[in-house]
Amino acid sequence: MNLHRTPIPVTEAVERVMHFAPQSSIEKITIDESYQRVLAEDIVSTHAVPPFNKSPYDGFAFNAEDVAEASRENPVRLHVIEEVGAGHRASRALETGEAVRIMTGAEIPEGATCVAMFEICQTLEENGNSYMTIKRKMEDGQNVISKGSETSKGTTLVKAGETINPGVQALLATFGYHEVHVYKKPVVGVFATGTELLDVDEPLQPGKIRNSNAYMILSQIERSGAEPVYLGKLADEFDPCYEAIFKAMQQVDIVITTGGVSVGDYDLMPDVYEKLGAKVLFNKIAMRPGSVTTVAEVDGQLLFGLSGNPSACYVGYELYAHPYIQAYLKRSDSYHSIIDVSLGSDIMKPNPFTRFIRGFISYEDGRVVVYPAGLDKSAVVTSLAHTNVLIVLKGGTRGYQKGDQVQAVLLEEESGSEEFLLNG
Amino acid sequence: MNLHRTPIPVTEAVERVMHFAPQSSIEKITIDESYQRVLAEDIVSTHAVPPFNKSPYDGFAFNAEDVAEASRENPVRLHVIEEVGAGHRASRALETGEAVRIMTGAEIPEGATCVAMFEICQTLEENGNSYMTIKRKMEDGQNVISKGSETSKGTTLVKAGETINPGVQALLATFGYHEVHVYKKPVVGVFATGTELLDVDEPLQPGKIRNSNAYMILSQIERSGAEPVYLGKLADEFDPCYEAIFKAMQQVDIVITTGGVSVGDYDLMPDVYEKLGAKVLFNKIAMRPGSVTTVAEVDGQLLFGLSGNPSACYVGYELYAHPYIQAYLKRSDSYHSIIDVSLGSDIMKPNPFTRFIRGFISYEDGRVVVYPAGLDKSAVVTSLAHTNVLIVLKGGTRGYQKGDQVQAVLLEEESGSEEFLLNG
Repeated sequence: MNLHRTPIPVTEAVERVMHFAPQSSIEKITIDESYQRVLAEDIVSTHAVPPFNKSPYDGFAFNAEDVAEASRENPVRLHVIEEVGAGHRASRALETGEAVRIMTGAEIPEGATCVAMFEICQTLEENGNSYMTIKRKMEDGQNVISKGSETSKGTTLVKAGETINPGVQALLATFGYHEVHVYKKPVVGVFATGTELLDVDEPLQPGKIRNSNAYMILSQIERSGAEPVYLGKLADEFDPCYEAIFKAMQQVDIVITTGGVSVGDYDLMPDVYEKLGAKVLFNKIAMRPGSVTTVAEVDGQLLFGLSGNPSACYVGYELYAHPYIQAYLKRSDSYHSIIDVSLGSDIMKPNPFTRFIRGFISYEDGRVVVYPAGLDKSAVVTSLAHTNVLIVLKGGTRGYQKGDQVQAVLLEEESGSEEFLLNG
Repeated sequence: MNLHRTPIPVTEAVERVMHFAPQSSIEKITIDESYQRVLAEDIVSTHAVPPFNKSPYDGFAFNAEDVAEASRENPVRLHVIEEVGAGHRASRALETGEAVRIMTGAEIPEGATCVAMFEICQTLEENGNSYMTIKRKMEDGQNVISKGSETSKGTTLVKAGETINPGVQALLATFGYHEVHVYKKPVVGVFATGTELLDVDEPLQPGKIRNSNAYMILSQIERSGAEPVYLGKLADEFDPCYEAIFKAMQQVDIVITTGGVSVGDYDLMPDVYEKLGAKVLFNKIAMRPGSVTTVAEVDGQLLFGLSGNPSACYVGYELYAHPYIQAYLKRSDSYHSIIDVSLGSDIMKPNPFTRFIRGFISYEDGRVVVYPAGLDKSAVVTSLAHTNVLIVLKGGTRGYQKGDQVQAVLLEEESGSEEFLLNG
């Protein structure tokens, strides 16, 4: 076993993972099931919006020419030939001197060029006929939402690779996308390794702890938009461990393991990779926590070997597995956004390595401030509960003070970034 | 019909809605189903973390007193009596002069007070016995993660009302919460009203448009954490409309309608409220779009009457229905966060009313900048697709310039705010 691994920078590790283009596939689903899925087709307007000249108000529609001479002194009277509600059409085109009573959202009849709101018109009945009078001029197009004024037919509105949010669903519905092509969610299998692990429903036993990493990662996978599958826990015994992982690789798209990636006597994963004939992309990264995070590849399929330490496991997932899952989903913005922020409190202890500290975001007077979520020992599980960013502290000989400018990785944002923007 | 409605301020409208405490209920679910649900119980540590003194490394555990005299010139030799892997326990307490070979995560045996990493120890075999030697002193507690150092038993870690994220799931698993109490998702029924509406799978017809609001709101409801139910579309005919809404109120927790809340001839909702015996909380708000948003109450149950205009519908949902759903879920942070931001581009057209403009967020050099998502006519559906904030522009006689300080409502944040922080 090689105890002397050479650490690579975080950005290089991300690049080595993203170098492998996954075999994405496409499925057709109904609009009802489409929320938060990733589009595999461009959404194109199948008709103009609005699809006809439309009235924005309740009022009277007529030809503006008919009231060209109207004034306070000279009210013009038009014959109201019918009423048009939204969803209905006038029975015929208007002729000179005619108007229709029209409702919000209804189609402007042929022959009409404007709409006057009720408030500026008077109505009267005479000999069984309806009339309206108006005391002012109108312009062509006044109070008419013209056909295609919002979008014309054949316009690409949302591109493949974007995520379906409520606004995109409105577009799908508007343009008749009862069914839509989306990228299939990759199935991600999770194993927790370690003889010390108990299941969540088992009572605590001496020397053992409950398996918390697997449940945590299952929700991280869900948050990433993939399909999580819990494959169980594996004791530190080589043969069953190898067999289980080998078998899982035939069944799921991506395999994630927690634990066993270090260089200890009981760390079986390096030997598992060897027996699988896997190419190890890296097994040491210049970061804390999660320096032993390992990614290996067999015939284009990736195995993510995350640390057994809860925080290292969490960070390793978000930095390496999350963007790869986004690549599987062909999302245009595969990476978590990494933004400039101010540090909200001192983190004085210097550290030679780049650290990813769990924290939460706060918006203060237009600035983005981040605070560490708690005690930052890498084994502490409790501080993960309030985490929505990873604060990036570059390694160095001094600590950081409140107000220092640093970067932060956003974890809960719906939209991400097209690039991995970690500073040198 | 009273055409002269008196507008109330947005904040007052929100208060009138939130004045009605909904009848939340609690259910027990398994940890696997719990992601993004709202806790109905505090999560309390059921044991100390770690539950025993634990080794952070692979190495040897022994009593520091035994090596008090160790130095380069005077190596001390200890008898290695056994090996302890993670999940196992030493068979007996250590006696003077003894050590155990111990693995990362394993329990420190009784009698041991420190762990020395392999790297600083030598090992030898003699007469079938294993020994280790060390050339330096160790301190009590050195390389030992002591029992309870991360959290002690009985500590409240996450409070009822918080949302279950991956970190909270890790805590549930750690402390044996195989099942957990959460607040039941309210069932929210959605009707779209309007004779002009076609279903998404119908071909376009003259004078008609497809029902996009219902699908949009169904995803907004999902994003809010509730259970959406599409109840269909209703033509502008009073009796069937009233009957359908009356019946739906017996079946779902909250009813949302779109359209029909204005003061036009075909706006049936005011009459529906009257026949239902509903108390109208408000039917006019000093805002654009969505000024006609109406909320009515019957025996403590709320009906949200949103505008039929897509953008007004979207905004009305997020400002009034979203926080009420959060109250149903008893989330501690019921409101969307409203934060201070800089405007990223000019919006010069002055408007006397407070406007909520669909936009998106950008992080620039530590500052939060927002940009309008597109053309801002209230009927434009297409700009909703890229919306993740509502930019708040207070009414006035002048427009706004790039760089102006304004507020923005965050729509996609997982965590919200305990207060509705709209300025003045």
